Amino acid sequence: MAVTVVGSIAYDRVKTPFGERERMLGGAATHFALAASFFDQVRIVGPVGDDFADLDTLALRGTDVSDVEHVAGGETFSWHGEYGWDLNARQTLETRLGVFETFEPKLGAASRQAGTLFLANIQPDVQRAVREQSQAAFVAMDSMDLWIEIARDSLVKTIEGVDCVILNDAELRQLTGRPNLLTAARQVLRMGPGVVVAKQGEYGAALITADEFFSLPAYPLETVMDPTGAGDSFAGGFVGSLAREPGEYRTAMAYGTALASFNVEEFGTERVARLTDDEIEQRVRMLESITRPGRAVRR
Amino acid sequence: MAVTVVGSIAYDRVKTPFGERERMLGGAATHFALAASFFDQVRIVGPVGDDFADLDTLALRGTDVSDVEHVAGGETFSWHGEYGWDLNARQTLETRLGVFETFEPKLGAASRQAGTLFLANIQPDVQRAVREQSQAAFVAMDSMDLWIEIARDSLVKTIEGVDCVILNDAELRQLTGRPNLLTAARQVLRMGPGVVVAKQGEYGAALITADEFFSLPAYPLETVMDPTGAGDSFAGGFVGSLAREPGEYRTAMAYGTALASFNVEEFGTERVARLTDDEIEQRVRMLESITRPGRAVRR
Repeated sequence: MAVTVVGSIAYDRVKTPFGERERMLGGAATHFALAASFFDQVRIVGPVGDDFADLDTLALRGTDVSDVEHVAGGETFSWHGEYGWDLNARQTLETRLGVFETFEPKLGAASRQAGTLFLANIQPDVQRAVREQSQAAFVAMDSMDLWIEIARDSLVKTIEGVDCVILNDAELRQLTGRPNLLTAARQVLRMGPGVVVAKQGEYGAALITADEFFSLPAYPLETVMDPTGAGDSFAGGFVGSLAREPGEYRTAMAYGTALASFNVEEFGTERVARLTDDEIEQRVRMLESITRPGRAVRR
Repeated sequence: MAVTVVGSIAYDRVKTPFGERERMLGGAATHFALAASFFDQVRIVGPVGDDFADLDTLALRGTDVSDVEHVAGGETFSWHGEYGWDLNARQTLETRLGVFETFEPKLGAASRQAGTLFLANIQPDVQRAVREQSQAAFVAMDSMDLWIEIARDSLVKTIEGVDCVILNDAELRQLTGRPNLLTAARQVLRMGPGVVVAKQGEYGAALITADEFFSLPAYPLETVMDPTGAGDSFAGGFVGSLAREPGEYRTAMAYGTALASFNVEEFGTERVARLTDDEIEQRVRMLESITRPGRAVRR
């Protein structure tokens, strides 16, 4: 079936209260691909510059990198950010678009034919251009506050053409102007998608469809080193799991949550790059155990 | 067995984006008692002034009001607050202590002998004075940011003498200086209590013991009119359920969550005052359904 992901491949410079990295592999497509690769064949699409030296990590677990476009003379997209004491608020210090400035995604035949497509957070016009090239049966997308602010109309058009929207709860509120999460999610459902996932950071995530609501807490961790990429790892686990078992949304929520929890335990891709299937299964079982009611409720 | 609650009985003046009330019955002990009264006999202890005219609501479902102290010449405690667009941030415009200024709780024999005691949010010295009068087998408490700021040592002493601490997650972080919820909760467990409950507002609540973690989302609502008293209704449902079924913490979390969800649907005590057992059971079943995994996880 295969999962195609389009989005940023980046070098991140990150500082958190627990350490810093000058130049680590990052980017939404990178984190997504690593997470999704536990569930299905992944094909990653995105531009890199002359300075890119981590194709081997992108290609872990059989991910196809033939649509990673090397832009000669270009510089890989880079992001520089810092997290404060509570890790929930982050400050972007610098974003260098580099090769992304002129990126026009061209999907090869195999990437077009993948059964599942994930549009990671990029300019919504570009997301739509990719959507139009794809023959996927299931298309999911992410976005960010910036596009809601400066390209809302285009973003809504993109949303109208996908099956599943994965956004932070604050972004759902911002997009719809509705402070109530359920009301906001239902407004997005009316734009076209059948599924909305609200990422809630340390509180977990909620899934909303026309007739279902499901909520899962984040996996409780005492050690959180670097939240960068957590949302993309969640999306990778969630969408990857759906590619393996279409329609099994609650199961997908558990896998997304598990992948995100591993992501934040170390910097960048460090933890997920050496993750095993057994570790994932174990954490999904733990998630089940920490949300299980104590006894059958009286009826 | 009976549950004794000590805390504020108040008149609230509240404005939210959905309406306002000039003078409605409120106070932590009030909201707690109404919620807990679905599970066990409740005894409410607290002072009121000459202006108090709602004893009949306090006495709903058999709650004993004989330890409600009428202070002649005094004015009932009152709070004036306003909620903004997102209902999560609230602004206190005025707090008038009234009869609370000189409150020295005196528990009658029956209130002392109740098997369960809840110390609602009041000055921690006063909480400890009540604790010392009580013969309860299970004691739970709440507090607030104010006491963490101005009376931390006294608050810690109070915490050392109870079985269960129920605080907002932000208060747990503030109390311990630990940004990580799990680390913060474990630090509070080391002070003495066997159970810590972290209230997370619209995200639900988490329960932490030495060897257990349990998390439950808030019940999803599109209509939230007034969050005042939600935390106290949660505590009332949680502690009340534990009084009925000691040690059944996960069940208690579900009842606390259900009671809080009814509380916020209307202003003040309006919804909970006319609530039925059947409505509570139905919502607890819904909570079970929105957190149930989609299928047995692969093993």
